[in-house]
Amino acid sequence: MPFVRNAWYVAGWSKDFGEDLRAITITEQNMVIFRASDGQVVALEDRCPHRLLPLSKGKRIGDTVQCGYHGMTFGIDGKCVRVPGQDNLPKSAYVDTFPVHEAHGIVWIWPGESALAADTPVFDMPEFSDPNWHAHHGDGLHLKANYLNVAENLVDPAHVSFVHPTTLGSAASENVPVHVSTAGDQIVAWRWIKDSAPVGFFQNFGGFTGNVDRWHYYYLHLPSTAVIDFGSADVAAKLEEDERDKGVRIFALHFVTPVTEDYTIDHWMHLRNTAVGDEAASENMDKMFRIAFAEDKEVLEAIHIEEQRPQKRKPIRIAIDKGPNVYRKRIRDLVEAEATEDLGAPLHPTFVQHD
Amino acid sequence: MPFVRNAWYVAGWSKDFGEDLRAITITEQNMVIFRASDGQVVALEDRCPHRLLPLSKGKRIGDTVQCGYHGMTFGIDGKCVRVPGQDNLPKSAYVDTFPVHEAHGIVWIWPGESALAADTPVFDMPEFSDPNWHAHHGDGLHLKANYLNVAENLVDPAHVSFVHPTTLGSAASENVPVHVSTAGDQIVAWRWIKDSAPVGFFQNFGGFTGNVDRWHYYYLHLPSTAVIDFGSADVAAKLEEDERDKGVRIFALHFVTPVTEDYTIDHWMHLRNTAVGDEAASENMDKMFRIAFAEDKEVLEAIHIEEQRPQKRKPIRIAIDKGPNVYRKRIRDLVEAEATEDLGAPLHPTFVQHD
Amino acid sequence: MPFVRNAWYVAGWSKDFGEDLRAITITEQNMVIFRASDGQVVALEDRCPHRLLPLSKGKRIGDTVQCGYHGMTFGIDGKCVRVPGQDNLPKSAYVDTFPVHEAHGIVWIWPGESALAADTPVFDMPEFSDPNWHAHHGDGLHLKANYLNVAENLVDPAHVSFVHPTTLGSAASENVPVHVSTAGDQIVAWRWIKDSAPVGFFQNFGGFTGNVDRWHYYYLHLPSTAVIDFGSADVAAKLEEDERDKGVRIFALHFVTPVTEDYTIDHWMHLRNTAVGDEAASENMDKMFRIAFAEDKEVLEAIHIEEQRPQKRKPIRIAIDKGPNVYRKRIRDLVEAEATEDLGAPLHPTFVQHD
Repeated sequence: MPFVRNAWYVAGWSKDFGEDLRAITITEQNMVIFRASDGQVVALEDRCPHRLLPLSKGKRIGDTVQCGYHGMTFGIDGKCVRVPGQDNLPKSAYVDTFPVHEAHGIVWIWPGESALAADTPVFDMPEFSDPNWHAHHGDGLHLKANYLNVAENLVDPAHVSFVHPTTLGSAASENVPVHVSTAGDQIVAWRWIKDSAPVGFFQNFGGFTGNVDRWHYYYLHLPSTAVIDFGSADVAAKLEEDERDKGVRIFALHFVTPVTEDYTIDHWMHLRNTAVGDEAASENMDKMFRIAFAEDKEVLEAIHIEEQRPQKRKPIRIAIDKGPNVYRKRIRDLVEAEATEDLGAPLHPTFVQHD
Repeated sequence: MPFVRNAWYVAGWSKDFGEDLRAITITEQNMVIFRASDGQVVALEDRCPHRLLPLSKGKRIGDTVQCGYHGMTFGIDGKCVRVPGQDNLPKSAYVDTFPVHEAHGIVWIWPGESALAADTPVFDMPEFSDPNWHAHHGDGLHLKANYLNVAENLVDPAHVSFVHPTTLGSAASENVPVHVSTAGDQIVAWRWIKDSAPVGFFQNFGGFTGNVDRWHYYYLHLPSTAVIDFGSADVAAKLEEDERDKGVRIFALHFVTPVTEDYTIDHWMHLRNTAVGDEAASENMDKMFRIAFAEDKEVLEAIHIEEQRPQKRKPIRIAIDKGPNVYRKRIRDLVEAEATEDLGAPLHPTFVQHD
Repeated sequence: MPFVRNAWYVAGWSKDFGEDLRAITITEQNMVIFRASDGQVVALEDRCPHRLLPLSKGKRIGDTVQCGYHGMTFGIDGKCVRVPGQDNLPKSAYVDTFPVHEAHGIVWIWPGESALAADTPVFDMPEFSDPNWHAHHGDGLHLKANYLNVAENLVDPAHVSFVHPTTLGSAASENVPVHVSTAGDQIVAWRWIKDSAPVGFFQNFGGFTGNVDRWHYYYLHLPSTAVIDFGSADVAAKLEEDERDKGVRIFALHFVTPVTEDYTIDHWMHLRNTAVGDEAASENMDKMFRIAFAEDKEVLEAIHIEEQRPQKRKPIRIAIDKGPNVYRKRIRDLVEAEATEDLGAPLHPTFVQHD
C-alpha cells in the first residue's frame, strides 16, 4: 500500500540537525537537510537535476548547496543559483523543497503537496509547555518493517503482557479487556489493570511497594503518531479515570516515520509528571524503553519477513484487534483519497486533551 | 520446478530436538518443532494465524505453544486453546500440523498432505538394527543449491574421480564405465575399480597395503535419499559382487532435504561393518567425509549460481548421466502427479536389501 | 542499455595472467583466462557445457582445461578433447573462445563476434614505444556503477574542479569553458587554465613554484578507452597548444571495461615525459591518482544507486555536457547497429596523434 504523503512526519530531533548536510528519507523521498544561517531547518530534494548525484554528497556554501559533481548550486528555495561553465540558469534547474516545522525540539517534514502543509496543524500537546512536566527525547528506533505494523502495535495494549513482561506488562493483564473509542480524529484503546503488583517500570519509577492500579491509554493520531499514556497509583488512592495526573503518569510518544515500505524509523520520547528535572531518571527510563522497544522490533521484523512469503490463508482477526482494524481502514481511506486527488479536508491531528 | 511434497524428509537427528522450540523449513514450509512431554517430536506450522509471528518466537507452556505477540496458544494438534481477551475460540484459529516419524536416531517429517503419510513407509535398512554394523550420525551440510542437483550428485559415481581425488576417488577410476539399473523403486548406479591402489579413505580405514578391488554402489530412493555402498577388499580375496560384506564396507547415507529452491540441507551419516563400537574411527571418518562433502558443496553452489544466469545453449548430456537423467524424469513425474492431484500409489522407498 | 560487444576491452595487465586459471567477466560473459605454454593468453567461455560448472573451478592439464566435476577437457580452441566414460566426443561439446590481443603489457579481449576482431585495430599510441616516455601500469578500479557513467566522466573536464580539488583541479578552473570536438573517431573535450597556481599534482611533479598554464585534454575512443592528456608549464614559457611536450605532460589512460550493467572495472595507467625511469615517482603518482579515482568512485556509485530509483523528472543537460551527450549518442548508435546485425565498418580506435 502506498504511503499517506500529505502529512507531517518527524525527521528527527532539533539537536540532530546543524550546519552539516544530512541525508534522510521519508515516504521514499530522499531529502538533504540542514539548518540555515537564520536557524531554520531546510529540506531539499536530495538529487541534483543534472546528473542525479545526491546533494548531500556536495557541500554548503553559505545558505546554498553545491553539487559535488559539477558544482551546480541551489538556494534554500530549491532554485539553481549557479551553473558552472554557463551564464544562463535553465528553468528546469531546481530541486523540490519540503515544508518544515520545528517545535519542542522536534523537526517535522511534510513530504506531500507543499500547498497543503500550511493548513494542517502539527501535532502538539499542552504538557510540552507545562513546567510540571518533564520532556525527554529518546532515540530513533530503526526497524526493517512496514510502518503500518509499527503504528498498529502502538494502538494495541494487548501485546504488552506478552512482549514486554519485564518492563511494561505482566501476566496480571493478560485477560483484561481492551476498550476502544474511534469517535474523533484519533483512535483510543485503553484498559485499567486494577489492584496488582507494579510492573518493572513502576517498580523503578514511583517507588511503589504495594499493589497499584495501572492504566494504559493508547492514542493514535493519523497517520502515525502515538501517545501512550500509562501510569500507576497506589490502590489506596482509589484513582478515577480522569484523575490520572494524581498518579505517576508518563506519556510515551512515538513518531512513526515511513522511510520505505520495508523500513521505518520510530522516534520516541517521553513526558512525565514525576522526577521533573532529573536527567538521571530520564536515562534510566530510556534504558527500560530500549529493552521494551527492542522486543517490539524483534516481533515486527519477524512479521515483516513472514508477510513477504506466500500466504496459504488470510490472517484471522480477534477481539483485541479493534484498534488496529480501524486504524488500517482509516489509512486505506486516506491513501485512496490522495490517489484520487479528492483530498478533502486536511488532517487535524492536534492533540485533544484526553482527561 | 516445485517440490515433491508428499514424502518423508529428514528434519535432523533425534539429538537435535528437545524441549526448546526450534524453527526449520522443509519444501518452503516453515515449521516449529519441539519434543513434547511424552517424548514425541511435534511439528507445527510456524506462523500464528493472527498476526503471522512465527510461533518459534514464542514459548512453550507445557505441551502448548504460546505466540510471542498476543499470547494465542496452540496445542500439539494445532488447535487454538486460548485467545487472550476473549472467551470464544474461532474455528479459523489453528495451525497446520505435520506428521513426524522417528527411528534410528533420525527425525522424519512429511510436509505434504497428512492423510497420505501413514500409508507411506519410511526409509529403513536392516543394518541399522544389526549388531555387526556400527551407525554414526554425521552433520547437516547446508548448501546454497537446489536439492535436485545435490541428489543428482548422489547417483553419479563418475564425479568421484575428479571432485574427491584425495578421499573417495582416484585417477584410476576416471574411465571405468558406470552401470545403471532403474528397474525398481530405486535408481542404482555402480562400478568396480579392480586391482588398483586403495584410495585415501581405505588407506586410513582397512589397513590395506597392496592393491584392492573397490566398489561404489549408489542407490537413490525417491525423492532424495541416497545410500552409497562403497568398500574395498584385497585383490587376493577375489571378491564377487554379492560378497561385499566380506570386504571393508561402508554405507554413506545422505538424506537430502529441500529447504527452498535455493537452499538444501544434506543430513549425512554412515554405517560400517568395521571398527564397530570405535568412536574414534567414527570421528576420523567424519573428518574425511567433511573434506569430500565440502568439495561437493563448492561444485554444487557454483553450478547453482551459473544456472541462475541466462543460458546461451542447452546443457549437453553424456554417457555417465544415465542415473541423473532417470532421476530427474522420475521427480518430474512425481511433481506432475501431485500437481494434478492424481496422487497414485504412495512411494515405497523401503530399502530393498541389495546384495 | 545493452553493451557494445564487438570491441576490444582490457581484461588486465600482462602481469596479471599466468599459468593459473583466472575467472573474469566482460559484458556479462564469464571467461576463464590463462597463459598457454607458448606464452599466448587464452580466453574460453567459463562454463562447462555439461553441468555448467565454471571451468575456472577445474584445472589445467598442459594446454587443456579439465572441468572439476566430471573431467570433460577442452583445448585452447574450445573443442572438447575428452569425455571420461565414453569414447566419442559429441559435436556440442565445446566452449566459446574469445580473441585476445596483448601489447605494451596490456591484455585485450574481444567479447563479441570473433570474426570481426581481426579487422579491428587495437588502441595504441606512439608514446608506448618512445624512450622519452615512461609507462606505468596502475590498478583496476572496481566500481558498482554502469560503465557509461564511468566513461562519460572521462570526457568531462568540468567535474575536475569540484570532485578533485586537492589533486587534479582547483577553484581556478570552475568557470573556464570546455571546448569539444567530435569530428573524428574520438571525442575530445579540453580546456586550458592559464596563469594560475599549480594544482596538487603539479606541486608534487614538476617542481613549479610560480603560476603555470595548465591543460586538460580528454580523448575518448569508443567504446570506452580514455586518454587524459594533462600537464603544466611555467607561465613564462608561453606554451602554445601544440607545444605541450615542452611542459610536464602526463597521459592518464583509462580502459573502462563493462563487467555487468552494475559493475565496471577501470584499468588505469599513465605515460609521462618526466621522471623517466623513476619508479618512486610512479608510485607517488599512483598515490595521487588513487585519491582522485576514489573520489570519482564515490560520485559514480552514488549516481548509480540514484539511477535505479523511480525518477520524477528527466535529468537536465547543461553546456558542459556536450562531450558526454555525443558520447552517449554514439554508444546508442553502436548498440543499435549490433542489435540489427547491420554491423557496418568496425571501429578504428587507433590513436591519432593529437598535437
